[in-house]
Amino acid sequence: MKNYRVKLSYRGTNYHGFQRQNNAMTVQQAVEDALSALLGENITIYGCSRTDAGVHAREFYFSFKTDNPIPPRGIVFGTNVRLNDDIALLSCEEMPPEFHARYSCRGKEYEYLVYCSEIRDPFLCDGAYRLMKPLDAGLLNREAQAFVGEHDFKSFCAADCEKENTTRTIYSFTVTQTGRLYRFRVAGNGFLYNMVRIMVGTLICINEGKLEVGAVKRLLQERDRTLSGRTVPPQGLYLDRVFYDDIYNRK
Amino acid sequence: MKNYRVKLSYRGTNYHGFQRQNNAMTVQQAVEDALSALLGENITIYGCSRTDAGVHAREFYFSFKTDNPIPPRGIVFGTNVRLNDDIALLSCEEMPPEFHARYSCRGKEYEYLVYCSEIRDPFLCDGAYRLMKPLDAGLLNREAQAFVGEHDFKSFCAADCEKENTTRTIYSFTVTQTGRLYRFRVAGNGFLYNMVRIMVGTLICINEGKLEVGAVKRLLQERDRTLSGRTVPPQGLYLDRVFYDDIYNRK
Repeated sequence: MKNYRVKLSYRGTNYHGFQRQNNAMTVQQAVEDALSALLGENITIYGCSRTDAGVHAREFYFSFKTDNPIPPRGIVFGTNVRLNDDIALLSCEEMPPEFHARYSCRGKEYEYLVYCSEIRDPFLCDGAYRLMKPLDAGLLNREAQAFVGEHDFKSFCAADCEKENTTRTIYSFTVTQTGRLYRFRVAGNGFLYNMVRIMVGTLICINEGKLEVGAVKRLLQERDRTLSGRTVPPQGLYLDRVFYDDIYNRK
Repeated sequence: MKNYRVKLSYRGTNYHGFQRQNNAMTVQQAVEDALSALLGENITIYGCSRTDAGVHAREFYFSFKTDNPIPPRGIVFGTNVRLNDDIALLSCEEMPPEFHARYSCRGKEYEYLVYCSEIRDPFLCDGAYRLMKPLDAGLLNREAQAFVGEHDFKSFCAADCEKENTTRTIYSFTVTQTGRLYRFRVAGNGFLYNMVRIMVGTLICINEGKLEVGAVKRLLQERDRTLSGRTVPPQGLYLDRVFYDDIYNRK
Protein backbone atom coordinates (compact mmCIF):
# COMPACT_ATOMS: atom_id res chain seq x y z
CA MET A 1 0.00 0.00 0.00
CA LYS A 2 1.49 3.33 -1.03
CA ASN A 3 0.71 6.45 0.98
CA TYR A 4 0.57 9.60 -1.15
CA ARG A 5 0.54 13.29 -0.33
CA VAL A 6 -1.07 15.45 -3.01
CA LYS A 7 -0.83 19.23 -3.33
CA LEU A 8 -4.06 20.77 -4.60
CA SER A 9 -5.32 24.24 -5.53
CA TYR A 10 -8.92 25.31 -5.96
CA ARG A 11 -11.24 28.25 -6.40
CA GLY A 12 -13.94 27.62 -3.82
CA THR A 13 -16.69 29.66 -5.49
CA ASN A 14 -18.59 26.70 -6.94
CA TYR A 15 -18.14 24.28 -4.02
CA HIS A 16 -19.79 23.87 -0.65
CA GLY A 17 -16.43 23.70 1.08
CA PHE A 18 -13.91 20.89 1.17
CA GLN A 19 -15.60 18.22 3.19
CA ARG A 20 -17.98 15.70 1.63
CA GLN A 21 -21.69 16.40 2.20
CA ASN A 22 -24.82 14.52 1.29
CA ASN A 23 -26.64 17.07 -0.85
CA ALA A 24 -24.04 19.49 -2.20
CA MET A 25 -20.93 19.27 -4.37
CA THR A 26 -17.72 19.64 -2.40
CA VAL A 27 -14.04 19.63 -3.30
CA GLN A 28 -13.55 16.30 -1.53
CA GLN A 29 -16.28 14.64 -3.54
CA ALA A 30 -15.03 16.06 -6.86
CA VAL A 31 -11.48 14.86 -6.16
CA GLU A 32 -12.52 11.47 -4.80
CA ASP A 33 -14.75 10.86 -7.83
CA ALA A 34 -11.93 11.76 -10.23
CA LEU A 35 -9.27 9.74 -8.38
CA SER A 36 -11.59 6.74 -8.02
CA ALA A 37 -12.36 6.80 -11.74
CA LEU A 38 -8.67 6.99 -12.59
CA LEU A 39 -7.55 4.24 -10.21
CA GLY A 40 -10.55 1.95 -10.60
CA GLU A 41 -11.21 1.67 -6.87
CA ASN A 42 -13.05 3.67 -4.20
CA ILE A 43 -10.58 6.23 -2.88
CA THR A 44 -11.03 8.16 0.35
CA ILE A 45 -8.89 11.26 0.76
CA TYR A 46 -7.90 13.02 4.00
CA GLY A 47 -7.59 16.79 3.73
CA CYS A 48 -5.30 19.05 5.77
CA SER A 49 -8.23 21.33 6.63
CA ARG A 50 -11.96 21.81 6.23
CA THR A 51 -12.44 24.98 4.25
CA ASP A 52 -15.93 26.52 4.22
CA ALA A 53 -18.19 27.11 1.24
CA GLY A 54 -16.71 29.80 -1.01
CA VAL A 55 -13.24 29.71 0.60
CA HIS A 56 -10.28 29.21 -1.76
CA ALA A 57 -7.02 27.30 -1.47
CA ARG A 58 -3.85 28.28 -3.29
CA GLU A 59 -2.18 25.33 -1.57
CA PHE A 60 -3.99 22.46 0.12
CA TYR A 61 -2.78 18.95 0.88
CA PHE A 62 -4.57 15.65 1.12
CA SER A 63 -3.32 12.11 1.64
CA PHE A 64 -4.66 8.81 0.37
CA LYS A 65 -3.55 5.19 0.01
CA THR A 66 -3.60 2.89 -2.98
CA ASP A 67 -1.93 -0.25 -4.37
CA ASN A 68 -2.22 1.05 -7.92
CA PRO A 69 1.21 1.15 -9.61
CA ILE A 70 0.47 4.30 -11.63
CA PRO A 71 3.35 6.77 -11.06
CA PRO A 72 2.74 10.07 -9.15
CA ARG A 73 2.93 12.13 -12.32
CA GLY A 74 0.24 9.91 -13.85
CA ILE A 75 -1.96 10.49 -10.81
CA VAL A 76 -1.62 14.28 -11.22
CA PHE A 77 -2.36 14.44 -14.94
CA GLY A 78 -4.90 11.60 -14.99
CA THR A 79 -6.92 13.20 -12.19
CA ASN A 80 -6.74 16.73 -13.58
CA VAL A 81 -8.38 15.74 -16.88
CA ARG A 82 -11.30 14.40 -14.82
CA LEU A 83 -11.76 17.61 -12.78
CA ASN A 84 -13.30 20.98 -13.60
CA ASP A 85 -10.96 23.86 -14.36
CA ASP A 86 -11.44 25.37 -10.89
CA ILE A 87 -9.59 22.50 -9.17
CA ALA A 88 -6.09 21.27 -10.01
CA LEU A 89 -3.72 18.71 -8.53
CA LEU A 90 -0.29 20.39 -8.50
CA SER A 91 1.94 17.52 -7.37
CA CYS A 92 1.91 14.06 -5.81
CA GLU A 93 4.64 12.30 -3.82
CA GLU A 94 4.98 9.09 -1.86
CA MET A 95 5.20 9.51 1.93
CA PRO A 96 6.11 7.26 4.85
CA PRO A 97 3.15 5.07 5.92
CA GLU A 98 2.38 7.10 9.05
CA PHE A 99 1.94 10.41 7.16
CA HIS A 100 -1.58 11.88 7.33
CA ALA A 101 -2.36 15.25 5.66
CA ARG A 102 -4.33 16.46 8.69
CA TYR A 103 -2.70 14.88 11.72
CA SER A 104 0.85 15.46 10.44
CA CYS A 105 0.15 19.13 9.70
CA ARG A 106 2.18 21.56 11.87
CA GLY A 107 0.69 24.85 10.77
CA LYS A 108 -0.99 26.89 8.07
CA GLU A 109 -0.93 30.35 6.62
CA TYR A 110 -4.09 32.08 5.42
CA GLU A 111 -4.56 35.26 3.43
CA TYR A 112 -7.71 37.36 3.55
CA LEU A 113 -8.25 39.94 0.79
CA VAL A 114 -10.25 43.13 1.29
CA TYR A 115 -10.66 45.94 -1.20
CA CYS A 116 -12.09 49.33 -0.42
CA SER A 117 -14.15 51.00 -3.12
CA GLU A 118 -17.51 52.71 -3.42
CA ILE A 119 -18.06 50.71 -6.62
CA ARG A 120 -17.49 46.97 -6.94
CA ASP A 121 -14.83 45.47 -9.20
CA PRO A 122 -16.36 42.69 -11.34
CA PHE A 123 -13.01 40.88 -11.38
CA LEU A 124 -12.80 40.70 -7.57
CA CYS A 125 -16.39 39.77 -6.76
CA ASP A 126 -15.63 36.09 -6.01
CA GLY A 127 -12.16 36.69 -4.62
CA ALA A 128 -12.23 39.56 -2.13
CA TYR A 129 -14.49 41.30 0.39
CA ARG A 130 -15.45 44.87 -0.50
CA LEU A 131 -15.74 47.73 1.98
CA MET A 132 -16.96 51.16 0.98
CA LYS A 133 -14.45 53.22 2.98
CA PRO A 134 -10.64 52.96 3.05
CA LEU A 135 -8.94 51.21 5.96
CA ASP A 136 -5.84 52.29 7.90
CA ALA A 137 -3.32 49.52 7.20
CA GLY A 138 -0.91 50.87 9.84
CA LEU A 139 -3.57 50.70 12.56
CA LEU A 140 -4.75 47.24 11.45
CA ASN A 141 -1.21 45.91 11.43
CA ARG A 142 -0.46 47.28 14.92
CA GLU A 143 -3.70 45.85 16.37
CA ALA A 144 -3.06 42.47 14.68
CA GLN A 145 0.15 42.00 16.69
CA ALA A 146 -1.94 41.30 19.80
CA PHE A 147 -2.99 37.99 18.20
CA VAL A 148 0.61 36.76 17.92
CA GLY A 149 1.66 34.14 20.46
CA GLU A 150 -0.18 31.41 22.37
CA HIS A 151 -3.67 32.45 23.42
CA ASP A 152 -7.11 31.08 24.15
CA PHE A 153 -9.12 32.03 21.04
CA LYS A 154 -12.56 31.27 22.50
CA SER A 155 -13.74 34.80 21.50
CA PHE A 156 -12.61 34.14 17.94
CA CYS A 157 -14.34 30.90 17.01
CA ALA A 158 -17.88 30.35 15.81
CA ALA A 159 -20.41 30.13 18.66
CA ASP A 160 -21.22 26.54 17.70
CA CYS A 161 -17.56 25.49 17.78
CA GLU A 162 -17.34 22.25 19.74
CA LYS A 163 -13.60 22.14 20.38
CA GLU A 164 -12.75 21.70 24.07
CA ASN A 165 -9.29 23.17 23.67
CA THR A 166 -9.47 26.62 22.07
CA THR A 167 -5.81 27.50 22.68
CA ARG A 168 -3.77 28.08 19.54
CA THR A 169 -0.47 29.73 18.64
CA ILE A 170 -0.31 32.48 16.04
CA TYR A 171 3.17 32.80 14.51
CA SER A 172 2.64 36.01 12.54
CA PHE A 173 -0.13 38.38 11.47
CA THR A 174 0.55 41.19 9.00
CA VAL A 175 -1.71 43.65 7.20
CA THR A 176 -0.37 45.32 4.06
CA GLN A 177 -1.93 47.66 1.52
CA THR A 178 -1.38 47.97 -2.24
CA GLY A 179 -3.62 50.70 -3.61
CA ARG A 180 -7.17 49.84 -2.59
CA LEU A 181 -6.31 46.17 -1.87
CA TYR A 182 -5.53 45.02 1.68
CA ARG A 183 -3.89 41.68 2.49
CA PHE A 184 -4.37 40.15 5.94
CA ARG A 185 -1.83 37.31 6.33
CA VAL A 186 -1.91 35.07 9.38
CA ALA A 187 0.14 31.96 10.15
CA GLY A 188 -0.42 29.68 13.09
CA ASN A 189 -0.26 26.12 14.37
CA GLY A 190 -4.00 25.65 13.99
CA PHE A 191 -7.23 27.57 13.47
CA LEU A 192 -10.67 27.14 15.03
CA TYR A 193 -13.91 27.21 13.03
CA ASN A 194 -14.26 30.69 11.38
CA MET A 195 -11.27 31.92 13.40
CA VAL A 196 -9.50 33.80 10.57
CA ARG A 197 -12.73 35.43 9.42
CA ILE A 198 -13.59 36.57 12.98
CA MET A 199 -10.06 37.89 13.63
CA VAL A 200 -10.16 39.90 10.39
CA GLY A 201 -13.71 41.09 11.13
CA THR A 202 -12.63 42.22 14.61
CA LEU A 203 -9.71 44.23 13.21
CA ILE A 204 -12.07 45.89 10.72
CA CYS A 205 -14.50 46.72 13.56
CA ILE A 206 -11.64 48.40 15.43
CA ASN A 207 -10.81 50.43 12.31
CA GLU A 208 -14.48 51.37 11.95
CA GLY A 209 -14.61 52.53 15.60
CA LYS A 210 -17.12 49.83 16.59
CA LEU A 211 -14.52 48.36 18.94
CA GLU A 212 -11.85 50.30 20.80
CA VAL A 213 -8.14 50.35 19.94
CA GLY A 214 -6.59 47.59 22.05
CA ALA A 215 -9.79 45.48 21.96
CA VAL A 216 -7.96 42.35 20.75
CA LYS A 217 -6.05 41.97 24.02
CA ARG A 218 -9.26 42.40 26.04
CA LEU A 219 -11.25 39.97 23.86
CA LEU A 220 -8.58 37.28 24.21
CA GLN A 221 -9.17 37.48 27.96
CA GLU A 222 -12.98 37.72 27.81
CA ARG A 223 -13.41 34.36 26.04
CA ASP A 224 -16.83 35.35 24.65
CA ARG A 225 -17.67 35.22 20.94
CA THR A 226 -20.54 37.68 21.31
CA LEU A 227 -18.12 40.49 22.24
CA SER A 228 -15.78 40.25 19.20
CA GLY A 229 -16.28 41.53 15.66
CA ARG A 230 -18.33 40.20 12.77
CA THR A 231 -17.44 37.15 10.66
CA VAL A 232 -16.33 38.52 7.29
CA PRO A 233 -17.59 36.62 4.22
CA PRO A 234 -15.83 33.55 2.81
CA GLN A 235 -14.93 34.77 -0.68
CA GLY A 236 -11.96 36.81 0.60
CA LEU A 237 -10.27 33.86 2.33
CA TYR A 238 -7.41 31.81 0.85
CA LEU A 239 -5.56 28.93 2.44
CA ASP A 240 -2.11 29.93 1.23
CA ARG A 241 0.49 27.61 2.73
CA VAL A 242 0.51 24.40 4.77
CA PHE A 243 3.46 23.39 6.94
CA TYR A 244 4.74 19.89 7.69
CA ASP A 245 7.77 18.70 9.65
CA ASP A 246 11.02 18.73 7.70
CA ILE A 247 11.03 14.94 7.46
CA TYR A 248 8.00 15.23 5.18
CA ASN A 249 9.35 17.96 2.97
CA ARG A 250 10.65 17.31 -0.48
CA LYS A 251 14.38 16.89 -0.70
CA MET B 1 -33.11 64.88 -23.78
CA LYS B 2 -29.83 64.26 -21.99
CA ASN B 3 -27.11 62.23 -23.69
CA TYR B 4 -25.01 60.19 -21.24
CA ARG B 5 -21.72 58.34 -21.56
CA VAL B 6 -21.31 55.51 -19.07
CA LYS B 7 -18.08 53.70 -18.20
CA LEU B 8 -18.64 50.01 -17.51
CA SER B 9 -16.55 47.02 -16.45
CA TYR B 10 -17.49 43.36 -16.72
CA ARG B 11 -16.24 39.81 -16.43
CA GLY B 12 -17.51 38.20 -19.63
CA THR B 13 -17.52 34.60 -18.38
CA ASN B 14 -21.26 34.37 -17.82
CA TYR B 15 -22.42 36.38 -20.84
CA HIS B 16 -22.79 35.65 -24.53
CA GLY B 17 -20.89 38.78 -25.44
CA PHE B 18 -22.01 42.39 -25.31
CA GLN B 19 -24.64 42.63 -28.03
CA ARG B 20 -28.26 41.75 -27.36
CA GLN B 21 -29.36 38.33 -28.68
CA ASN B 22 -32.67 36.56 -28.75
CA ASN B 23 -31.89 33.44 -26.78
CA ALA B 24 -28.90 34.15 -24.57
CA MET B 25 -28.07 36.61 -21.79
CA THR B 26 -25.75 39.38 -22.91
CA VAL B 27 -24.16 42.36 -21.20
CA GLN B 28 -26.33 44.75 -23.26
CA GLN B 29 -29.52 43.06 -22.13
CA ALA B 30 -28.48 42.93 -18.46
CA VAL B 31 -27.59 46.64 -18.49
CA GLU B 32 -30.66 47.71 -20.49
CA ASP B 33 -32.94 45.76 -18.15
CA ALA B 34 -31.37 47.35 -15.07
CA LEU B 35 -31.36 50.89 -16.53
CA SER B 36 -34.93 50.55 -17.79
CA ALA B 37 -36.12 49.39 -14.36
CA LEU B 38 -34.33 52.29 -12.68
CA LEU B 39 -35.58 54.97 -15.09
CA GLY B 40 -39.05 53.58 -15.68
CA GLU B 41 -38.77 53.65 -19.48
CA ASN B 42 -37.36 51.42 -22.19
CA ILE B 43 -33.70 52.32 -22.57
CA THR B 44 -31.53 51.35 -25.54
CA ILE B 45 -27.77 51.59 -25.03
CA TYR B 46 -25.07 51.92 -27.71
CA GLY B 47 -21.80 50.17 -26.88
CA CYS B 48 -18.32 51.19 -28.05
CA SER B 49 -17.62 47.66 -29.23
CA ARG B 50 -19.11 44.20 -29.64
CA THR B 51 -17.14 41.88 -27.42
CA ASP B 52 -17.55 38.13 -27.98
CA ALA B 53 -18.85 35.55 -25.54
CA GLY B 54 -16.37 35.09 -22.68
CA VAL B 55 -14.39 38.26 -23.46
CA HIS B 56 -13.90 40.72 -20.57
CA ALA B 57 -13.86 44.50 -20.35
CA ARG B 58 -11.91 46.43 -17.75
CA GLU B 59 -13.18 49.61 -19.42
CA PHE B 60 -16.10 49.79 -21.82
CA TYR B 61 -18.29 52.75 -22.75
CA PHE B 62 -21.88 52.99 -23.82
CA SER B 63 -24.15 55.95 -24.50
CA PHE B 64 -27.88 56.40 -24.02
CA LYS B 65 -30.46 59.16 -23.89
CA THR B 66 -33.13 59.94 -21.33
CA ASP B 67 -35.28 62.80 -20.02
CA ASN B 68 -35.16 61.43 -16.49
CA PRO B 69 -33.79 64.05 -14.06
CA ILE B 70 -31.95 61.51 -11.85
CA PRO B 71 -28.34 62.73 -11.44
CA PRO B 72 -25.41 60.75 -12.97
CA ARG B 73 -24.30 59.41 -9.60
CA GLY B 74 -27.82 58.10 -9.03
CA ILE B 75 -27.71 56.34 -12.40
CA VAL B 76 -24.45 54.60 -11.43
CA PHE B 77 -25.52 53.42 -7.97
CA GLY B 78 -29.16 52.75 -8.90
CA THR B 79 -28.16 50.58 -11.84
CA ASN B 80 -25.43 48.70 -9.98
CA VAL B 81 -27.81 47.40 -7.32
CA ARG B 82 -29.90 45.92 -10.15
CA LEU B 83 -26.95 44.12 -11.80
CA ASN B 84 -25.04 40.96 -10.92
CA ASP B 85 -21.64 41.33 -9.26
CA ASP B 86 -19.80 40.58 -12.52
CA ILE B 87 -20.92 43.86 -14.15
CA ALA B 88 -20.44 47.34 -12.69
CA LEU B 89 -21.10 50.87 -13.91
CA LEU B 90 -18.03 52.89 -12.94
CA SER B 91 -19.10 56.42 -13.90
CA CYS B 92 -21.67 58.40 -15.87
CA GLU B 93 -21.36 61.86 -17.40
CA GLU B 94 -23.46 64.07 -19.64
CA MET B 95 -22.13 64.54 -23.18
CA PRO B 96 -22.92 66.86 -26.11
CA PRO B 97 -25.96 65.63 -28.10
CA GLU B 98 -23.89 64.32 -31.03
CA PHE B 99 -21.75 61.99 -28.87
CA HIS B 100 -22.17 58.26 -29.64
CA ALA B 101 -20.10 55.64 -27.77
CA ARG B 102 -19.34 53.74 -30.97
CA TYR B 103 -19.18 56.33 -33.75
CA SER B 104 -17.27 58.85 -31.63
CA CYS B 105 -14.68 56.25 -30.59
CA ARG B 106 -11.15 56.97 -31.89
CA GLY B 107 -9.35 53.84 -30.74
CA LYS B 108 -9.07 51.01 -28.26
CA GLU B 109 -6.46 49.08 -26.38
CA TYR B 110 -6.82 45.35 -25.70
CA GLU B 111 -4.83 43.04 -23.47
CA TYR B 112 -4.58 39.31 -24.04
CA LEU B 113 -3.30 37.14 -21.17
CA VAL B 114 -1.47 33.86 -21.69
CA TYR B 115 0.12 31.72 -19.02
CA CYS B 116 2.46 28.85 -19.65
CA SER B 117 2.25 25.89 -17.30
CA GLU B 118 1.98 22.13 -17.57
CA ILE B 119 -0.71 22.29 -14.88
CA ARG B 120 -3.64 24.69 -14.91
CA ASP B 121 -4.13 27.44 -12.33
CA PRO B 122 -7.71 27.31 -10.97
CA PHE B 123 -7.60 31.08 -10.40
CA LEU B 124 -6.78 31.83 -14.05
CA CYS B 125 -9.14 29.41 -15.77
CA ASP B 126 -11.69 32.07 -16.81
CA GLY B 127 -9.18 34.86 -17.25
CA ALA B 128 -6.23 33.62 -19.31
CA TYR B 129 -5.28 31.14 -22.01
CA ARG B 130 -2.94 28.35 -20.93
CA LEU B 131 -0.12 26.92 -23.00
CA MET B 132 1.95 23.96 -21.87
CA LYS B 133 5.37 25.27 -22.94
CA PRO B 134 7.03 28.62 -22.18
CA LEU B 135 7.07 31.33 -24.82
CA ASP B 136 9.92 33.63 -25.85
CA ALA B 137 8.66 37.11 -24.96
CA GLY B 138 11.57 38.77 -26.78
CA LEU B 139 10.76 36.97 -30.03
CA LEU B 140 7.03 37.64 -29.69
CA ASN B 141 7.62 41.31 -29.04
CA ARG B 142 9.95 41.69 -32.06
CA GLU B 143 7.50 39.89 -34.37
CA ALA B 144 4.58 41.96 -33.05
CA GLN B 145 6.21 45.18 -34.32
CA ALA B 146 5.31 44.18 -37.89
CA PHE B 147 1.65 44.82 -37.01
CA VAL B 148 2.30 48.45 -36.08
CA GLY B 149 1.19 51.04 -38.65
CA GLU B 150 -1.58 51.17 -41.27
CA HIS B 151 -2.16 47.80 -42.93
CA ASP B 152 -4.83 45.72 -44.61
CA PHE B 153 -5.72 43.15 -41.93
CA LYS B 154 -7.71 40.82 -44.22
CA SER B 155 -5.53 37.87 -43.07
CA PHE B 156 -6.37 38.70 -39.47
CA CYS B 157 -10.15 38.82 -39.40
CA ALA B 158 -12.61 35.97 -39.11
CA ALA B 159 -13.38 34.33 -42.47
CA ASP B 160 -17.02 35.41 -42.18
CA CYS B 161 -16.11 39.04 -41.56
CA GLU B 162 -18.25 41.19 -43.82
CA LYS B 163 -16.38 44.47 -43.62
CA GLU B 164 -15.48 45.88 -47.03
CA ASN B 165 -12.66 47.97 -45.67
CA THR B 166 -10.20 45.82 -43.73
CA THR B 167 -7.54 48.50 -43.36
CA ARG B 168 -6.78 49.51 -39.79
CA THR B 169 -3.99 51.33 -37.95
CA ILE B 170 -2.19 49.70 -35.04
CA TYR B 171 -0.58 52.27 -32.74
CA SER B 172 1.42 49.89 -30.53
CA PHE B 173 1.81 46.19 -29.81
CA THR B 174 3.94 44.96 -26.92
CA VAL B 175 4.49 41.55 -25.37
CA THR B 176 5.85 41.39 -21.82
CA GLN B 177 6.47 38.53 -19.43
CA THR B 178 6.14 38.34 -15.62
CA GLY B 179 7.02 34.85 -14.47
CA ARG B 180 4.80 32.44 -16.37
CA LEU B 181 2.29 35.19 -17.34
CA TYR B 182 2.52 36.89 -20.74
CA ARG B 183 0.70 40.12 -21.60
CA PHE B 184 -0.03 40.97 -25.22
CA ARG B 185 -1.10 44.63 -25.39
CA VAL B 186 -2.32 46.13 -28.64
CA ALA B 187 -3.76 49.59 -29.33
CA GLY B 188 -5.30 50.69 -32.60
CA ASN B 189 -7.91 52.85 -34.26
CA GLY B 190 -10.22 49.89 -34.80
CA PHE B 191 -10.31 46.11 -34.80
CA LEU B 192 -11.99 43.62 -37.13
CA TYR B 193 -13.95 40.61 -35.93
CA ASN B 194 -11.58 38.30 -33.95
CA MET B 195 -8.62 40.41 -35.05
CA VAL B 196 -6.82 40.56 -31.69
CA ARG B 197 -7.29 36.84 -31.11
CA ILE B 198 -5.93 35.97 -34.57
CA MET B 199 -2.95 38.35 -34.23
CA VAL B 200 -2.05 36.80 -30.86
CA GLY B 201 -2.59 33.28 -32.23
CA THR B 202 -0.33 34.03 -35.19
CA LEU B 203 2.47 35.28 -32.91
CA ILE B 204 2.14 32.09 -30.83
CA CYS B 205 2.31 29.97 -34.02
CA ILE B 206 5.55 31.75 -34.95
CA ASN B 207 6.95 30.99 -31.48
CA GLU B 208 5.88 27.34 -31.84
CA GLY B 209 7.62 27.10 -35.24
CA LYS B 210 4.35 26.51 -37.12
CA LEU B 211 4.91 29.79 -38.99
CA GLU B 212 8.30 31.26 -39.92
CA VAL B 213 9.95 34.24 -38.24
CA GLY B 214 8.86 37.26 -40.28
CA ALA B 215 5.50 35.66 -41.20
CA VAL B 216 3.48 38.68 -40.03
CA LYS B 217 4.84 40.91 -42.79
CA ARG B 218 4.11 38.24 -45.41
CA LEU B 219 0.59 37.55 -44.09
CA LEU B 220 -0.31 41.25 -44.17
CA GLN B 221 0.45 41.14 -47.91
CA GLU B 222 -1.26 37.78 -48.62
CA ARG B 223 -4.68 38.95 -47.42
CA ASP B 224 -5.86 35.38 -46.74
CA ARG B 225 -7.23 34.27 -43.36
CA THR B 226 -6.47 30.60 -44.06
CA LEU B 227 -2.73 31.29 -44.03
CA SER B 228 -2.47 32.99 -40.62
CA GLY B 229 -2.46 31.44 -37.14
CA ARG B 230 -5.24 30.05 -34.98
CA THR B 231 -7.85 32.13 -33.15
CA VAL B 232 -6.93 31.91 -29.48
CA PRO B 233 -9.86 31.45 -27.06
CA PRO B 234 -11.91 34.36 -25.68
CA GLN B 235 -11.25 34.04 -21.94
CA GLY B 236 -7.78 35.64 -22.23
CA LEU B 237 -9.06 38.83 -23.90
CA TYR B 238 -9.72 42.12 -22.09
CA LEU B 239 -10.88 45.39 -23.58
CA ASP B 240 -8.64 47.61 -21.49
CA ARG B 241 -8.97 51.22 -22.66
CA VAL B 242 -11.20 53.18 -25.04
CA PHE B 243 -10.12 56.46 -26.59
CA TYR B 244 -12.27 59.47 -27.50
CA ASP B 245 -11.36 62.89 -28.84
CA ASP B 246 -10.20 65.38 -26.23
CA ILE B 247 -13.44 67.33 -26.50
CA TYR B 248 -15.20 64.34 -24.97
CA ASN B 249 -12.75 63.80 -22.16
CA ARG B 250 -13.48 64.80 -18.64
CA LYS B 251 -12.06 68.15 -17.65
